[in-house]
Amino acid sequence: MIEKPLIDIELAIEARWVVPVTPQRQTLEYTAVIIDQGRILDVLPIELARQHYRAKQVVSLDEHVLIPGLINLHTHAAMTLMRGLADDLPLMPWLQEHIWPAEKQWLSSQFVRDGSLLACAEMLGGGVTCFNDMYFYPQATAEACIQAGMRAHLGLVVIEFASVYANDADDYLQKGLDARDSLRNNPLLSFSLAPHAPYTIENSTFEKVMTYSEQLGLGIHTHLHETKAEIELGISQYATRPLRRLLDLGLLGPDFIAAHGVHLLPEEMEMLAAHGCHIVHCPTSNLKLASGIAPVPALLNKGVNVGLGTDGAASNNRLDMFAEMRLAALLAKGTSVDAAVLPAAQALEMATINAAKALGLDDKIGSIEIGKFADISAVRIADLETSPCFDPLSHLIYACGREHVSHVWVAGELRYEKSHHQNGVYANIEPAELKEISAKWQSKLTQYK
Amino acid sequence: MIEKPLIDIELAIEARWVVPVTPQRQTLEYTAVIIDQGRILDVLPIELARQHYRAKQVVSLDEHVLIPGLINLHTHAAMTLMRGLADDLPLMPWLQEHIWPAEKQWLSSQFVRDGSLLACAEMLGGGVTCFNDMYFYPQATAEACIQAGMRAHLGLVVIEFASVYANDADDYLQKGLDARDSLRNNPLLSFSLAPHAPYTIENSTFEKVMTYSEQLGLGIHTHLHETKAEIELGISQYATRPLRRLLDLGLLGPDFIAAHGVHLLPEEMEMLAAHGCHIVHCPTSNLKLASGIAPVPALLNKGVNVGLGTDGAASNNRLDMFAEMRLAALLAKGTSVDAAVLPAAQALEMATINAAKALGLDDKIGSIEIGKFADISAVRIADLETSPCFDPLSHLIYACGREHVSHVWVAGELRYEKSHHQNGVYANIEPAELKEISAKWQSKLTQYK
Repeated sequence: MIEKPLIDIELAIEARWVVPVTPQRQTLEYTAVIIDQGRILDVLPIELARQHYRAKQVVSLDEHVLIPGLINLHTHAAMTLMRGLADDLPLMPWLQEHIWPAEKQWLSSQFVRDGSLLACAEMLGGGVTCFNDMYFYPQATAEACIQAGMRAHLGLVVIEFASVYANDADDYLQKGLDARDSLRNNPLLSFSLAPHAPYTIENSTFEKVMTYSEQLGLGIHTHLHETKAEIELGISQYATRPLRRLLDLGLLGPDFIAAHGVHLLPEEMEMLAAHGCHIVHCPTSNLKLASGIAPVPALLNKGVNVGLGTDGAASNNRLDMFAEMRLAALLAKGTSVDAAVLPAAQALEMATINAAKALGLDDKIGSIEIGKFADISAVRIADLETSPCFDPLSHLIYACGREHVSHVWVAGELRYEKSHHQNGVYANIEPAELKEISAKWQSKLTQYK
Repeated sequence: MIEKPLIDIELAIEARWVVPVTPQRQTLEYTAVIIDQGRILDVLPIELARQHYRAKQVVSLDEHVLIPGLINLHTHAAMTLMRGLADDLPLMPWLQEHIWPAEKQWLSSQFVRDGSLLACAEMLGGGVTCFNDMYFYPQATAEACIQAGMRAHLGLVVIEFASVYANDADDYLQKGLDARDSLRNNPLLSFSLAPHAPYTIENSTFEKVMTYSEQLGLGIHTHLHETKAEIELGISQYATRPLRRLLDLGLLGPDFIAAHGVHLLPEEMEMLAAHGCHIVHCPTSNLKLASGIAPVPALLNKGVNVGLGTDGAASNNRLDMFAEMRLAALLAKGTSVDAAVLPAAQALEMATINAAKALGLDDKIGSIEIGKFADISAVRIADLETSPCFDPLSHLIYACGREHVSHVWVAGELRYEKSHHQNGVYANIEPAELKEISAKWQSKLTQYK
């Protein structure tokens, strides 16, 4: 018998569970993810992995679940600096009396760099490896991403009003495209055109965006139908609802990402589906600003690809994709009066593979599959609040929070790690003992799963 | 000048902020809470406290906010052992195919004790110092509370079907009252009668419950109008909606706590207000089981006292009052289309003083005020995800999670403590430096608050 030589690889992550987010929706047990040159080379049982691969580094995660790095499909990263600046206010006073004056006085490249770095730190610590951004000074956001070692899809923002960043729509476009030119060789960065919203962009600008989109192969990221007021304004100005206007302008297509989509008629959902558009559901922000609740079960039924976003920290006030996954699952059930709607597996898909599809990056990220980049987060399921554990996928959505994230890799590089050696101490409770008791009951109850 | 002698006391907690939850809704800064013999003796500026009191122990919390211990106003603590046993299922298959068979086979005093201890550990670790329970074997739940050093209001459960715990309604009542007799001298425990729900309790049993309630001065805790199906069943069986039936039976009054109240007509809300009844809003559970969304803004408008509950971990799947506070605030805004509805201060009131009122314990707990028991939780606002901090009260509801709870005292005894010395480590981000940068921007932006 001739032994096959071991294959040398850089990193093997051996995990108790892996939820790879593939169409089969399986949960793998005692599985190794084999990583080399930033990519996933293999996914196989730990025993087999040890027979086939010799890893420079082995990370053993015996009480953890590996998931694809989460993707925040709509945010304004730099706005972390305005987290909790103003709350419990209707949209217009919130914007006009707090957010816009603060931006007007303090917006700068440094502001965006600092705020984006804070956002990167918060997101990485919560298992997010990629975000789809829209804000001024995308170059400064890029610098933060590069420092953090995080993946980003940067929206080159366009808006009709002047700011310290740019003078007019053409200037925004030019500055955005210049930023892209200087950054486009970075493998962690990709770009889209980001006309802010139908109510802040004129038709002529949308036409220019279309031209650049076609010429440069760039997707389009915009806010759409977030509030009823915005739709009414659109009707009064353009004699048509905003989505129909964008259709008439030729913007809708598989490269079109619309954030929010709270207020959509059935025929509008069909229009989005027919054109292969993507919706970013931002449940926390939509509730907090009292915009409403997007019709996610209907969108999914009609075949629209739906991802999840936090929106900016000024209206959330977290960049926490665990919170968005849970809230999306809960709201879909509660509003459709059907507890089977949007099960845990689908919530995780919305935060991973669906988002990757929307970004046109689903050949590179969004699942733990051979050939993709090793953008992976590990979630530790070993605390009392995640005990017992009958199903790690259920726990990911309903019991875990971002605080259970223990390791985050981007393209195979470890970008965040948290030690859990110091757990809480109780006066009269011994957590280790209680976990054993819980495990004992779990084995008895597993038959009812 | 004659110096006044210092007063000897047991414990002084010196905090950066205190949110005492008083009608003025103030946030105190650099404030000490003076504790002696389990009670709050004084609340005053740190400087003054040091001049007046000599504490055996001083706990300095210079980046923390003190809040009243949170009160979980509706739970089934022992059901932690069925956390995630079955999800994404409609109520009846969930109950009939998973929860009830598991209970039928495994319910025992030991099950309840173990599950309740797990619940106590989870709740204490999340800043909860008191819970209002309803489950079999209340004596076993009491034992867990006594071990954990946690306060509880134990519902003496009554239901018409036999279980391993009791044979019939009379037996449930007798066993519950026996448990109360043996436990009533424990200062951490109080009791209510807990007829399970109108659809599981006959009129004759409700009448017995009423009699005991009046004779023994015990409150009543029941499930009410959780689902539409339950109301339809009530109409078909009793020719009246369940709430009206309870009114006719004479049950409604200031000692009556109804969990859920998802489906309520305007005149029913007025009825609840007129009789001084209390509603427990359980937003996560109501969404997860697809029961709906309780009309909380309308209830508050009509003057009904509303508290918050997690329900059991089998339908949540967390006993996390931070999650319930945030979700309650978000849902109220989103469903009323008014972002000013249910501001942060009110969400915290629902989880503290409103709940204390419902339990008839508002002279003892629910706020940080002189004379009350020192049931206090400390929340650390110093991590990147809670940075910057313009308003600690906003952060408590919108940015913090239970993972930020650092200390929990019940009646002045430290029952939980978490060291935060080991934070997450980033590859290329220095958290301490980033916190300084964030603080710099905060000082610039504070003017827009």
